[in-house]
Amino acid sequence: MARSLTILGATGSIGRSATDVILAHRAELSIEAVVGGSNAEALANVARRLGARFAALADEKGGAALKEALSGSGVASGAGESAVIEAAQRESDVVLAAISGTAGLRPTHAALKAGRRIALANKESLVCAGAAFMADASRLGAEIMPVDSEHNALDQALAAGANRDVEKAIITATGGPFRTWTRERIATASAQEASAHPVWSMGSKINIDSATLMNKGLELIEAHHLFGLEAGRLDVIVHPEAIVHGLVQWRDGAVTAGLALPDMKVPIANALRHRERLPMDLPRLDLAAIGRLSFEKPDETRFPCLALAKAALEAGGAMPTVLNAANEIAVAAYMAGRIGFYDISENVERVCSNFARGSVAAPASVPDALVIDKEAREAARRLIPAYA
Amino acid sequence: MARSLTILGATGSIGRSATDVILAHRAELSIEAVVGGSNAEALANVARRLGARFAALADEKGGAALKEALSGSGVASGAGESAVIEAAQRESDVVLAAISGTAGLRPTHAALKAGRRIALANKESLVCAGAAFMADASRLGAEIMPVDSEHNALDQALAAGANRDVEKAIITATGGPFRTWTRERIATASAQEASAHPVWSMGSKINIDSATLMNKGLELIEAHHLFGLEAGRLDVIVHPEAIVHGLVQWRDGAVTAGLALPDMKVPIANALRHRERLPMDLPRLDLAAIGRLSFEKPDETRFPCLALAKAALEAGGAMPTVLNAANEIAVAAYMAGRIGFYDISENVERVCSNFARGSVAAPASVPDALVIDKEAREAARRLIPAYA
Repeated sequence: MARSLTILGATGSIGRSATDVILAHRAELSIEAVVGGSNAEALANVARRLGARFAALADEKGGAALKEALSGSGVASGAGESAVIEAAQRESDVVLAAISGTAGLRPTHAALKAGRRIALANKESLVCAGAAFMADASRLGAEIMPVDSEHNALDQALAAGANRDVEKAIITATGGPFRTWTRERIATASAQEASAHPVWSMGSKINIDSATLMNKGLELIEAHHLFGLEAGRLDVIVHPEAIVHGLVQWRDGAVTAGLALPDMKVPIANALRHRERLPMDLPRLDLAAIGRLSFEKPDETRFPCLALAKAALEAGGAMPTVLNAANEIAVAAYMAGRIGFYDISENVERVCSNFARGSVAAPASVPDALVIDKEAREAARRLIPAYA
Repeated sequence: MARSLTILGATGSIGRSATDVILAHRAELSIEAVVGGSNAEALANVARRLGARFAALADEKGGAALKEALSGSGVASGAGESAVIEAAQRESDVVLAAISGTAGLRPTHAALKAGRRIALANKESLVCAGAAFMADASRLGAEIMPVDSEHNALDQALAAGANRDVEKAIITATGGPFRTWTRERIATASAQEASAHPVWSMGSKINIDSATLMNKGLELIEAHHLFGLEAGRLDVIVHPEAIVHGLVQWRDGAVTAGLALPDMKVPIANALRHRERLPMDLPRLDLAAIGRLSFEKPDETRFPCLALAKAALEAGGAMPTVLNAANEIAVAAYMAGRIGFYDISENVERVCSNFARGSVAAPASVPDALVIDKEAREAARRLIPAYA
């Protein structure tokens, strides 16, 4: 029998790749619900293509347009936050949580609370509220399958042993567009230059995070929660070809690595698997054709955001929530041309160190996390003019 | 409680590495018996160092010297084939089968028949008599853990999925000392030149097999039996740095790889693990320090032995047994300076194609395999003068 799937974030980059995976596996996967942000037409299109039963648009104002676009399709629809939560909680076997940013937290958590298996592509769920998420998942027995290529690779590699045998789990970074640039040159880089990601085509905010390496820092925090590994057992290595996505170093000296061509359909298909892997009609990794894979240490002098994220992970408590919020505000200011590249890390560092004086415990719930997130954003906004 | 271990081939290269692993884990591993070939003093030394209960020397003539060397140690001893078989069958939790060549077949099989878990380093058990070995292992529920770095890496990588999801299992080859040489230059290579292995220090016959790539061909045959993968799902890639040892390509496009610094203590420790991995105080793999890994297609024109082994695996039946026997004779003739480098493959090919006319079924037992092995050796010896 087909397994049913709900997609939160069906019109985004992950949602589009997931659509391709699903269309290739109509017999194995049926669609319960799809959720989009504000583009009613795009959401109606994906709902029709996938034969969803329900479509929900986060933007309440788009509700009428969605209904109109779906007329005659038999797809029920709704708009606004309650419709999104309804979609997340509908009976289904897997919920692909791919709404980006803090907006993804509540719907993802709603699906988790309904006991759904989560294929997780929303970073913020774990970065802002990781302890609360994982505690709820464990209490409800809800499985979380990582969709990020790095965590998906680690998840597969970790099958080769027990958690206590893991000495280090390492995620790879392409190094971003500034990997070979000097600090002086990077300091004057425009947001447009920072957005030119060498391998992946993602949203623009995440491209800036790749240029600062904050993205890898956030992924370390995610890995900590997903795999129950403390900061000392997590690391990052730069690997420009983006073929090796994650490596697990075991205490007997062996290493297990997860590789794939950089195509999000691979980890999505993997995260949606059930007992067996889904066959994918994609080009295969041909290492002889690629010829070489290269690796280097990340440079935390040129990319201080990585060190800041590691420090936040090490500090624990609410610090990762604060780091993430401050980073979002700083990146928005950088993208708006209001601050320079290294002002991102300086701003994040200042918000974190102000906050450290209060030393707040890890948010025990998603609403708690959202309160801290809001406070940290306000603190970050207050600091921005200093750099403007 | 400590697990007990018997080592067949305790004085060879694998045995010596195993000794280091065991000495680092005295609390977890105790030694039941050790078996050596003809060096009584070396065997007595390892028996004393490891605190074995029993030592057996294959060479009957060395029995008195062994007894003498062990006097006062409390280690019982014996010599000749029956003593070796006794050692193999004594009560123990794991038997490390590391006698090299066809001589390892009977003792390894004796341990298997006694229901022992086998940590397998003897290639010939699977190359000559793989079907019989695996059928017995399956019937007796005896687990076989591969010690070869390539198969050990595959074994770990295969934990990430089910056999039916495996599209291809790939083992790596350093490419040997002639990787960058022209066919013309290789044709005149001496056995000494062929013995200069770029990474591993092994016995001399296996070094020649690495130079011809026959070693990889034999490893494909082993992998076929160990993992139940047919010829079409097995492949070889050249990787001079010998860091990646095996890769599994899954049907969803993901790849799981097994890596380690080239040190036999890593796969030995892995094969001797029980539930958890043994912590090893060895240098860790540092990909940033290594900088690059390179890969290329193996060249079957310059290295025809690889194609011959693939053809033998594809042909099945007794062909792998014949290939292996013919190769041993040809390599011995090459090492004695009686034939040239490419006469190895020509000789093996001729013996195989003569044999193909008879098309014999896969040997159903170890004695059957040894009969075919002997016939093939005689056929190979008859052909050698043509090349002398």
